[in-house]
Amino acid sequence: MAANTFGHILRLTTFGESHGVAIGGVLDGFPSGIRIDFNFIDAMLRERRPGSKAGSTQRREADEVEFLSGIAEGVSLGTPIAFLIRNKDKRSKDYSHLKDLYRPSHADYTYQSKYGIRDHKGGGRASARETVARVVGGALAQQLLWEKKVDIAAWVSRIGVIQSNKQPTREEIEVAAGDPLYCPDQEASQKMKAYLDELRQQGDSAGGIISCSIIKVPAGWGEPVFDKLHADLGKAMLSINAVKGFEYGSGFSAASMQGSRHADEFYYDKAGNNIRTRTNYSGGIQGGISNGEEIFFNVAFKPVSSIGKQQQTVDKKGKSQSFQVQGRHDVCVVPRAVPIVKAMAALVLADHYLLNKRYS
Amino acid sequence: MAANTFGHILRLTTFGESHGVAIGGVLDGFPSGIRIDFNFIDAMLRERRPGSKAGSTQRREADEVEFLSGIAEGVSLGTPIAFLIRNKDKRSKDYSHLKDLYRPSHADYTYQSKYGIRDHKGGGRASARETVARVVGGALAQQLLWEKKVDIAAWVSRIGVIQSNKQPTREEIEVAAGDPLYCPDQEASQKMKAYLDELRQQGDSAGGIISCSIIKVPAGWGEPVFDKLHADLGKAMLSINAVKGFEYGSGFSAASMQGSRHADEFYYDKAGNNIRTRTNYSGGIQGGISNGEEIFFNVAFKPVSSIGKQQQTVDKKGKSQSFQVQGRHDVCVVPRAVPIVKAMAALVLADHYLLNKRYS
Amino acid sequence: MAANTFGHILRLTTFGESHGVAIGGVLDGFPSGIRIDFNFIDAMLRERRPGSKAGSTQRREADEVEFLSGIAEGVSLGTPIAFLIRNKDKRSKDYSHLKDLYRPSHADYTYQSKYGIRDHKGGGRASARETVARVVGGALAQQLLWEKKVDIAAWVSRIGVIQSNKQPTREEIEVAAGDPLYCPDQEASQKMKAYLDELRQQGDSAGGIISCSIIKVPAGWGEPVFDKLHADLGKAMLSINAVKGFEYGSGFSAASMQGSRHADEFYYDKAGNNIRTRTNYSGGIQGGISNGEEIFFNVAFKPVSSIGKQQQTVDKKGKSQSFQVQGRHDVCVVPRAVPIVKAMAALVLADHYLLNKRYS
Amino acid sequence: MAANTFGHILRLTTFGESHGVAIGGVLDGFPSGIRIDFNFIDAMLRERRPGSKAGSTQRREADEVEFLSGIAEGVSLGTPIAFLIRNKDKRSKDYSHLKDLYRPSHADYTYQSKYGIRDHKGGGRASARETVARVVGGALAQQLLWEKKVDIAAWVSRIGVIQSNKQPTREEIEVAAGDPLYCPDQEASQKMKAYLDELRQQGDSAGGIISCSIIKVPAGWGEPVFDKLHADLGKAMLSINAVKGFEYGSGFSAASMQGSRHADEFYYDKAGNNIRTRTNYSGGIQGGISNGEEIFFNVAFKPVSSIGKQQQTVDKKGKSQSFQVQGRHDVCVVPRAVPIVKAMAALVLADHYLLNKRYS
Repeated sequence: MAANTFGHILRLTTFGESHGVAIGGVLDGFPSGIRIDFNFIDAMLRERRPGSKAGSTQRREADEVEFLSGIAEGVSLGTPIAFLIRNKDKRSKDYSHLKDLYRPSHADYTYQSKYGIRDHKGGGRASARETVARVVGGALAQQLLWEKKVDIAAWVSRIGVIQSNKQPTREEIEVAAGDPLYCPDQEASQKMKAYLDELRQQGDSAGGIISCSIIKVPAGWGEPVFDKLHADLGKAMLSINAVKGFEYGSGFSAASMQGSRHADEFYYDKAGNNIRTRTNYSGGIQGGISNGEEIFFNVAFKPVSSIGKQQQTVDKKGKSQSFQVQGRHDVCVVPRAVPIVKAMAALVLADHYLLNKRYS
Repeated sequence: MAANTFGHILRLTTFGESHGVAIGGVLDGFPSGIRIDFNFIDAMLRERRPGSKAGSTQRREADEVEFLSGIAEGVSLGTPIAFLIRNKDKRSKDYSHLKDLYRPSHADYTYQSKYGIRDHKGGGRASARETVARVVGGALAQQLLWEKKVDIAAWVSRIGVIQSNKQPTREEIEVAAGDPLYCPDQEASQKMKAYLDELRQQGDSAGGIISCSIIKVPAGWGEPVFDKLHADLGKAMLSINAVKGFEYGSGFSAASMQGSRHADEFYYDKAGNNIRTRTNYSGGIQGGISNGEEIFFNVAFKPVSSIGKQQQTVDKKGKSQSFQVQGRHDVCVVPRAVPIVKAMAALVLADHYLLNKRYS
Repeated sequence: MAANTFGHILRLTTFGESHGVAIGGVLDGFPSGIRIDFNFIDAMLRERRPGSKAGSTQRREADEVEFLSGIAEGVSLGTPIAFLIRNKDKRSKDYSHLKDLYRPSHADYTYQSKYGIRDHKGGGRASARETVARVVGGALAQQLLWEKKVDIAAWVSRIGVIQSNKQPTREEIEVAAGDPLYCPDQEASQKMKAYLDELRQQGDSAGGIISCSIIKVPAGWGEPVFDKLHADLGKAMLSINAVKGFEYGSGFSAASMQGSRHADEFYYDKAGNNIRTRTNYSGGIQGGISNGEEIFFNVAFKPVSSIGKQQQTVDKKGKSQSFQVQGRHDVCVVPRAVPIVKAMAALVLADHYLLNKRYS
Repeated sequence: MAANTFGHILRLTTFGESHGVAIGGVLDGFPSGIRIDFNFIDAMLRERRPGSKAGSTQRREADEVEFLSGIAEGVSLGTPIAFLIRNKDKRSKDYSHLKDLYRPSHADYTYQSKYGIRDHKGGGRASARETVARVVGGALAQQLLWEKKVDIAAWVSRIGVIQSNKQPTREEIEVAAGDPLYCPDQEASQKMKAYLDELRQQGDSAGGIISCSIIKVPAGWGEPVFDKLHADLGKAMLSINAVKGFEYGSGFSAASMQGSRHADEFYYDKAGNNIRTRTNYSGGIQGGISNGEEIFFNVAFKPVSSIGKQQQTVDKKGKSQSFQVQGRHDVCVVPRAVPIVKAMAALVLADHYLLNKRYS
């Protein structure tokens, strides 16, 4: 039991409140002897940074990571890697009027119910600011996966009512990292942008869907029964703020398919060495274990709860209250959540990579 | 790390291969002093039993549970409750032709890849037969939840192309337990039955969706950050055989909603004692913690992979093979999965009930 | 949190009350492809069996193990290995007079305090009968260690006031398995036997010390900081019924030694390939990690609490009571605990063997 | 599996190398609403500080703790409490000559074997410097135990050849915190001091024993079978650097006692409300569960491995080397380990306090 720890033998523990001293994490179980690419970590953090994408606020968070342990002369020691990011742009005064207020669809009321106390500044521990630690942890985990050339890519496939059905290539996804919507479908991206501009003017917000594709995972990763690879991926994604749904492979559409069509027929590739499947409704996972095909899944995000419109709610003392978020707020956080999805996927896969080594 | 164990402090470990000696489990962390209702356990097992629902095979599994420990004179001792169900109807001969075959969309190939060996009889450990142990464990967990009057109901809301959009009452769900499709919408149920009859004649199979509603969960259950209540529910559901997707509250539809509509406005009930929300897009969970409203979610199941049609595949030795399932097979297992969904939900909730007690 | 589960990635869960239906266990994380030597398991069980050694009762427990899962055609599948031993010789009537009594130095009172209920028959879950499941689990773990030729030997080095200071050879320990006291020092063994005969006539009981030596553990096993190899060994031993102390290497005598003497000087062996130490006060473990030298430790057992003399105590209702154990009782259980010590050591080492593979 | 995490539901994760950026920890599972006494934490840290006790070096470590999360306005939030202590007095140059050297009875060789790399500066992760994080975590855990008035006291009962057999009162132990040897027996303390002065002149070092007494633990704490209260205490103590043995209650002396003497007879106290035992060979724990009596145990420490005398060893390249620790070194660290013993005991007890609440 460790509510703030994720993973079986590669374990990330995160800590920190949104407007506290710092957000950080401890990654335990990371093997020794791996030369850390700090630029890669910074690049993933930049993708998550507010202001980096359309729809997000201008809050400036330099997000400078300080590594405290586990790395000497750029190489991992096998000991826990601890790191922190100080919260610089606190502006605590902004939040005093929210002290006793339960904002709709936030965690204010539930934290108060559970703990009898809460840090009301910026959502405290419930803030998506916590995910900065996941990105650092995931960026490290990804480096472990490089040993096996496992390649995790994610992108925005829906914002609000705008859906992109394009199956992007690896290259297109890479390019999309520079897109303000992180969407590899340029036509859809432009529509999304226009849609968000409209919502911004209305003081409203949008949700969306992030799609993720993982290739070059060898057959055999994942533990049967409870710790199925997709069950761990699902939990990882559902633990991200604002996520409401997860599907992999054929997903919800499987419910209306017939078994004869859904069957992924096996064949040997030309060289005769590798078993492949002709279709991939299984999403690269069968019986909870990877089969060597592409793993893919979708993650649904609800619209941002803090909007610019006046809202009705209650406070701690039993009074009805109307309130309105002042100043900046995000219209849509989905593009910024792409690195978080990639980070959590990397943590799950690296964990199962290490778990599977005990059979080597 | 415990691939065959589920839960934080209420932990179910399951064991057993489909055609081995027995399937069973050990439930650890179950409190003492609870008078066990064995009839309730039998009733849940009956719901899961093959032949009990339309679309399933006639394999007779009496599923007699033998309790080995943890209960004395009908009352729980606080020690591990171990139980087993012997596999009586093995018919091992049926499976010899599958010894080297990798059936499409089954776990044959992935188990072989991971372990270098597999029990090919009836799917071995990857068979849904394993879930009988989950139903026993969940039926015990549910009895713990009675202390709080937590009420878990589930039903079939889709079979293949037939969707029911009816919001059933508690009573209608109870009646649905007797329906061959476990569907509280009689019109839809009849269409589903006709659809399955058609598929059976074609030697084909269907998937579907199970919906689950949980009421009377007090505010405050669930652990923030990684062990969010819905993240644990999601993992629990995704660990069930054939599940491809999970969504809770507004789910995937949240992706296209606007924040102004998605906000669940708080108010005090008439007596002024309880905080309620006017809408419930949150699905009873905010920030990973229950808020006292109804918890609801959907679980998508793929169609059964064993069908009556001839299929192409390969065997272990690299040869292409065509094969056809002989004799009985399920056209649709979704109705029989309802008690499994309820059982896994009960395990998650009872676990979080106990976890939350440390704050009492 | 899993009070009835031991281990990190090789995990033994045990269940069962002394006079319940059965005692058993589930070993999860055991690798696939290992041909199981059932005779070896039986041989370890025979060493533990009551009546097999001097000082123990004549209770007949055939201890027939039934394996329920995880093994097919004699080979492990990588799935959980579940097993049970039915309790045949229950004689439940013997225990009715103990229903409300708190026997001195037993767990009667503490179980009642914790659970508000207890299975009073033969000590219920607190009985050393539980350790039969540890022996089966440990006998399986030991077979995993054979891959590395790890050799675990244990013997009785003290019974009551009789101490053997002989350092036995591997051969002498093997012979000692046939000794009624499991003591490789024949002179001491005879004195121990005479001492126990005397105590039996007095209706009294004795404790003792078991010594354990483990060779051929490669350097590198054990996790630093909290899961040090000796810390896990210590917890394993202290979890055995009646154990009061654990020391490894120089142990308690280290407290009075000087650093200059206690230093284990390193040297390269003749071939120049292996690093060795000239002395081994470290007991084969430095910084929690094995260094390739012999691992050795001592485990202290208290005398049996059930004696033939009349004793004073109280019952649940607040009354003083005098009572006397009727019929058979053990004068000394230490010789029978030798296989339990070996089993727990095997579980710890096999677990760390698998853990360390993630660095391979 | 989490080598750097300790505890079941109150979990301390520590990180940091001796001469890295910082040492720190994350305490997860600490309940909300507790006003933190920072002075108490500082006081425990002062007890551990080098230079605070006879026998230790003059290395100045201000050990200023920075709390990063989990506490707002002095009150715990129920979220993880992260903290760090920066390593100020690094003097890294001192250690360059040790880069390839395997110091006798240190963890240099085993870390190198396990990880293929090590931080040679001051022992890296294997340094006792890590324990500063345990003291902070334990000082927090102790504050949780104040709710139940649980009182943990520890003291030095042996240094090298000097043993104190005095049973100190609570008051005498409190006074002993000011004694240079943390020994409540003034006569023994003076002899210990003289003994250490002698060893210092010889460039040698000494070990010792710390005794610990815990009172006011209610009956019912501790989990049966594997997570027995004394098994968890034993593991906690054995995980402290330099510890070679652990015994509780009658300990190793139990091995030579007779059952008739070892029995702790129960009686009702005068008021007739509480069950007590007349003797306490059980050390306050029966069947792994507290019985309400005093819990006591001894922890044996080996002598410091770094001594002022010239020593023989080998280096990584296979060469024999002689070396001598230059400058300061500890003659005896046992007095400074008293707060570490108390901290680890507090972590175990607070964990079991919370675990036991699920039965409330």
